[in-house]
Amino acid sequence: MRRVALRVVSVLVLSSCAAPSRTAHPPVASSSAGFDAPDSGAIELVRSLSDEVGPRLAGSPGDALAVAWAQRTMTSLGLANVHTEAARVTHWERGVERGAITSPVAQTVALTALGGSVPTAPEGLEAELVEAPSLEALDAMSDERVRGRIVYLHAVMRRAVDGAGYGEAVSARTRGAIAAARKGAVAVLVRSIGTDSSRAPHTGQMRYDDAVTRIPAAALSTADGDMVHRTLARNTGPVRFRLTLGCRALPEADSANVVGEVPGTDRAQEVVLLGAHLDSWDLGTGALDDGAGVSIVLSTARALLTSRPRRTVRVVLFANEENGLGGGRAYAQAHADELARHVAALEADAGDGHVLRVRWAGDPAHHGLFDTLASRLAPFGIARDDEPAHGGADVSPLGERGVPRVDLVQEMARYFDHHHTANDTPAVVDARELDRAVAAWTVAVRTLADADTDLGRAPPPTH
Amino acid sequence: MRRVALRVVSVLVLSSCAAPSRTAHPPVASSSAGFDAPDSGAIELVRSLSDEVGPRLAGSPGDALAVAWAQRTMTSLGLANVHTEAARVTHWERGVERGAITSPVAQTVALTALGGSVPTAPEGLEAELVEAPSLEALDAMSDERVRGRIVYLHAVMRRAVDGAGYGEAVSARTRGAIAAARKGAVAVLVRSIGTDSSRAPHTGQMRYDDAVTRIPAAALSTADGDMVHRTLARNTGPVRFRLTLGCRALPEADSANVVGEVPGTDRAQEVVLLGAHLDSWDLGTGALDDGAGVSIVLSTARALLTSRPRRTVRVVLFANEENGLGGGRAYAQAHADELARHVAALEADAGDGHVLRVRWAGDPAHHGLFDTLASRLAPFGIARDDEPAHGGADVSPLGERGVPRVDLVQEMARYFDHHHTANDTPAVVDARELDRAVAAWTVAVRTLADADTDLGRAPPPTH
Repeated sequence: MRRVALRVVSVLVLSSCAAPSRTAHPPVASSSAGFDAPDSGAIELVRSLSDEVGPRLAGSPGDALAVAWAQRTMTSLGLANVHTEAARVTHWERGVERGAITSPVAQTVALTALGGSVPTAPEGLEAELVEAPSLEALDAMSDERVRGRIVYLHAVMRRAVDGAGYGEAVSARTRGAIAAARKGAVAVLVRSIGTDSSRAPHTGQMRYDDAVTRIPAAALSTADGDMVHRTLARNTGPVRFRLTLGCRALPEADSANVVGEVPGTDRAQEVVLLGAHLDSWDLGTGALDDGAGVSIVLSTARALLTSRPRRTVRVVLFANEENGLGGGRAYAQAHADELARHVAALEADAGDGHVLRVRWAGDPAHHGLFDTLASRLAPFGIARDDEPAHGGADVSPLGERGVPRVDLVQEMARYFDHHHTANDTPAVVDARELDRAVAAWTVAVRTLADADTDLGRAPPPTH
Repeated sequence: MRRVALRVVSVLVLSSCAAPSRTAHPPVASSSAGFDAPDSGAIELVRSLSDEVGPRLAGSPGDALAVAWAQRTMTSLGLANVHTEAARVTHWERGVERGAITSPVAQTVALTALGGSVPTAPEGLEAELVEAPSLEALDAMSDERVRGRIVYLHAVMRRAVDGAGYGEAVSARTRGAIAAARKGAVAVLVRSIGTDSSRAPHTGQMRYDDAVTRIPAAALSTADGDMVHRTLARNTGPVRFRLTLGCRALPEADSANVVGEVPGTDRAQEVVLLGAHLDSWDLGTGALDDGAGVSIVLSTARALLTSRPRRTVRVVLFANEENGLGGGRAYAQAHADELARHVAALEADAGDGHVLRVRWAGDPAHHGLFDTLASRLAPFGIARDDEPAHGGADVSPLGERGVPRVDLVQEMARYFDHHHTANDTPAVVDARELDRAVAAWTVAVRTLADADTDLGRAPPPTH
């Protein structure tokens, strides 16, 4: 009975959304935990960006190749008004990176510089290791224990179906160098913020504080972090470590956001913005982060082209999300006069997983459209979540200016096995999951773009 | 009813084996699919060898460290007659390794030299890629298609619970260089023989034929192999590849097998040999391959020490299993006069998994002891397998001389995700699975070492 009922609802949703299928197999909700989605072709876009562009850190040669790829791809998909919009971006290069325990037993470890780290001297540095289980524990340690040493932060990330462990653990990476340098450390090593058991270290952005000495910062692979942890726990004398990082910051570079549209019909001046980021970290080929998001928003736009919604659906592939947010800031600035006509912004930057929940941030008095949205997504097993939407990093500057955000919260249980590592390639992207995400996005965006009402203006973000 | 019956059998097995438990929790067969094993301490031996020695390829500095570790560890566990036995071993070093697609789009790939490969010229070599899906397909290709090119063998390994996919796929690695060079190829690249989706390439031994030109041979990670495969399939013109390998063969080196015993009682002159290999490939720390096997045989011996069996149980940690078998040959030669008193040889070289099946190779007229063995293992969910035992690589020279082998076939579904890669570290070893393997080994070895009968002499191996 439940299956039959859901199929009826599903047909109603599809027809009320006026979303003719591109394929012979329209999405059918078959249970509250899953549904069969049509082949959206989304995996081919991930493979194309990963294979034909590859790594594309802001300011690198790959960054420029990615901008060209995005223009070419949007045009071939049939989007209108395809163009680039200039953005100034952070430019940082990795260079050589080596690390090893030198005593009590020599062991080479797998590590990678954190994004933005200063280098070591060319010959590297060597010092005794001291471990802290958390930033809080480090803050509580005496300067004497830390001074002149390399701090190892044994921050173990929790696996969670929605990736919630990341937010809990990531401050060890972003703030570790500041906390360690305050106590006089000469470098900081962080156990990779990830859920795998591999030798592939996870890079990611870190910060300095102008009032504190800038020290080199690197992530050990989770396997190597655990080895360092065990070696220290054996308590057989001082554990010394040698670190060499050749990374460097360069002057800001020129890059671009790439924009394309599904032009609206009778409300074309109003915009539903679909964002993802075009840049990637340099270790992998950016298939999950954010090739999957790029593919979700492009595939959603492609699906909508077959029957254009009332409002304009604008795809923005942002530059420099990973290590500077230059693209997000440039868009908000260039479109300041138009933001009042942005009725919603959504960002896909959570990999290939199906959608678990939907949440929003808008005017509470305009809840009617969110009620409709949630009810249309329910047959796909997508839960209504009344926590405020975060929006992605790129659309956060829009949220600060009152643009409502809608979050389609994705399943991320495996995402942080590969996030920001060399393993982020199409080999770890699940084509069927990606199709399920695209199907949900298509229903959601059509609902937002066709509605008689809107979400009002959003209150200032609380975080 | 079944659970109750099994527990009764289990208690009988344990008491008939006179194997007092070292811990408060003796192994209890709780279902045909699994049982709770006591904490054997086996994981600590894996961690110690991995962390305190690490990579230990034959002839390398780690090889000598491993020999010292094994003597120290056997002595501290209480084994008797701990000593080394000299073995001459293959010595090969890796050196620099780099690979990249250079056109149509530049993409760096993750690869590693196969063990024994010759180097490229120091500046590397560059040539067009040509793909073959298998050795058979390569053999069928015209010389014109292959000559002057780099062959890519897209050999995709199948995941199987007992690791059976390895034997099906591995010839692409071992024989690829010969087959490609026969057609005039300048190098061969093999998709890693593994079941993962990562960037960690799998090394492993390869062969040359004295009648065929020796060409450089490397494994691409599975993810990179798939990328090369897709790039060729896009058919957008020649795909060129640049390969640099700095590996080299050195003269044979000195190493040693390490031997220790649980002395027998009234049949001490008869030997049950437990083998594992002490060497490892150089990319990881050899935790699964073969730290787990080393730990299984040492933990089994430790468990037997509490109540010595009638026959002598001899642990042999072999040198140079991975790339030469110098240790296995040296043992068979040094002990030639004693092999008639070797009543069984078992080798642990299949990772950390629990035991699925038991099989043997001996005199068919002596099946009584195997019947007993199989019946004592049945309560642990271990199936009788009437295929002939293979024995491990190190004990194969013993099999050729009539020593019966017993195989305790382990679960290997995940083993080939990590085999011969940088990811082979304690982070991927399952302590509870290892305990289950040790519990089964202990029952099996006690049965063989205490029996009134034996397995006779084995017929010559058929493979």
